[in-house]
Amino acid sequence: MTGLFLTIEGGDGSGKSTQSALLAEWLEAQGRTVVLTREPGGTDFGLEVRDLVLHWHGDISPRAEALLYAADRAHHIATKVRPALDRGEIVLQDRYLDSSVAYQGAGRVLEPAEIRNLSLWATEGLLPDLTILLDLDESIGRDRLKERTKYDRLEAEEQAFHARVRVGYLALATAEPDRFLVLDASDDLDSLASAIRERVSKLL
Amino acid sequence: MTGLFLTIEGGDGSGKSTQSALLAEWLEAQGRTVVLTREPGGTDFGLEVRDLVLHWHGDISPRAEALLYAADRAHHIATKVRPALDRGEIVLQDRYLDSSVAYQGAGRVLEPAEIRNLSLWATEGLLPDLTILLDLDESIGRDRLKERTKYDRLEAEEQAFHARVRVGYLALATAEPDRFLVLDASDDLDSLASAIRERVSKLL
Repeated sequence: MTGLFLTIEGGDGSGKSTQSALLAEWLEAQGRTVVLTREPGGTDFGLEVRDLVLHWHGDISPRAEALLYAADRAHHIATKVRPALDRGEIVLQDRYLDSSVAYQGAGRVLEPAEIRNLSLWATEGLLPDLTILLDLDESIGRDRLKERTKYDRLEAEEQAFHARVRVGYLALATAEPDRFLVLDASDDLDSLASAIRERVSKLL
Repeated sequence: MTGLFLTIEGGDGSGKSTQSALLAEWLEAQGRTVVLTREPGGTDFGLEVRDLVLHWHGDISPRAEALLYAADRAHHIATKVRPALDRGEIVLQDRYLDSSVAYQGAGRVLEPAEIRNLSLWATEGLLPDLTILLDLDESIGRDRLKERTKYDRLEAEEQAFHARVRVGYLALATAEPDRFLVLDASDDLDSLASAIRERVSKLL
């Protein structure tokens, strides 16, 4: 049995945690060992790096921040993900390089292609066998999280940002259709879980 | 008046601090504003990053470590060095990308060219106007620091490492002869200082 590297992507509130848990449960019922993990902060060291980024009292230059997240990724992949794949396990990861590219592209500071290349250098070119994109209209994702529908100006800007993230994700999926499974995250949980299982079962 | 970016390189014990101080004093006597700085750890944020690297209790993957040092560099150049150059000041910096390339090359884990490219991405391609390399036989550098001449096995390995660093530095200087001023660091202080002033005065 060979390892399998699955990533799950989408905006906040798109249901990544729920679908990850359901998929892990199903895979374990098939007798597979599943490593559930996440970025950023998938290792103790990565948590320290994330802490430094989030709690630093001043500005951090955009390239420095991108490099710190890449460091977290490099360490996570080298010490946790690759060893699990080498043992033939299934790694199911919440967010990976597509998040970095989509969010960076939405922020419009650094070129998405640069961010992708940085991630590929950090990870020695590790791409997922399958990336599940839970695509959701950004206003629905926000409503799920906030349970309200009115936005002030700042929130409207945030919404425009999340709309750009969504477009970025869809562009990535279009560029690599074989790697991506794009699902409408507004579907019911069971339909989504079933569609994911169907696609993953082809890889087992 | 335009800014000038000068870096000083060499192994430990090669006299970088002494020559930096002498050069800064001379430049200030010419009425120039000099920013003396260093990597790693040339900013408060960089000190935090360096602290994380040095005091982490476990292993750090080689790429993660390289990315953290690149983050320190990105932040230092963006927030301290470029602003000073934009103000027309002279930045005199102890260690820069040539250190990373020479030391990484000596460690033989990552490709020196990769480290160089990472640094150039981090700094948006900033290269020094002049790099002063204080070249010294590695055993002399060590003696200056340790004041002893006998090595045990580990120290001999360390010496071989420092010999490779030296070779790496000289290779960099050979590849970019216009950027480098290579001096024999075993010369007396005054001769070295005078040779440095002579070369720097052509850039003023």
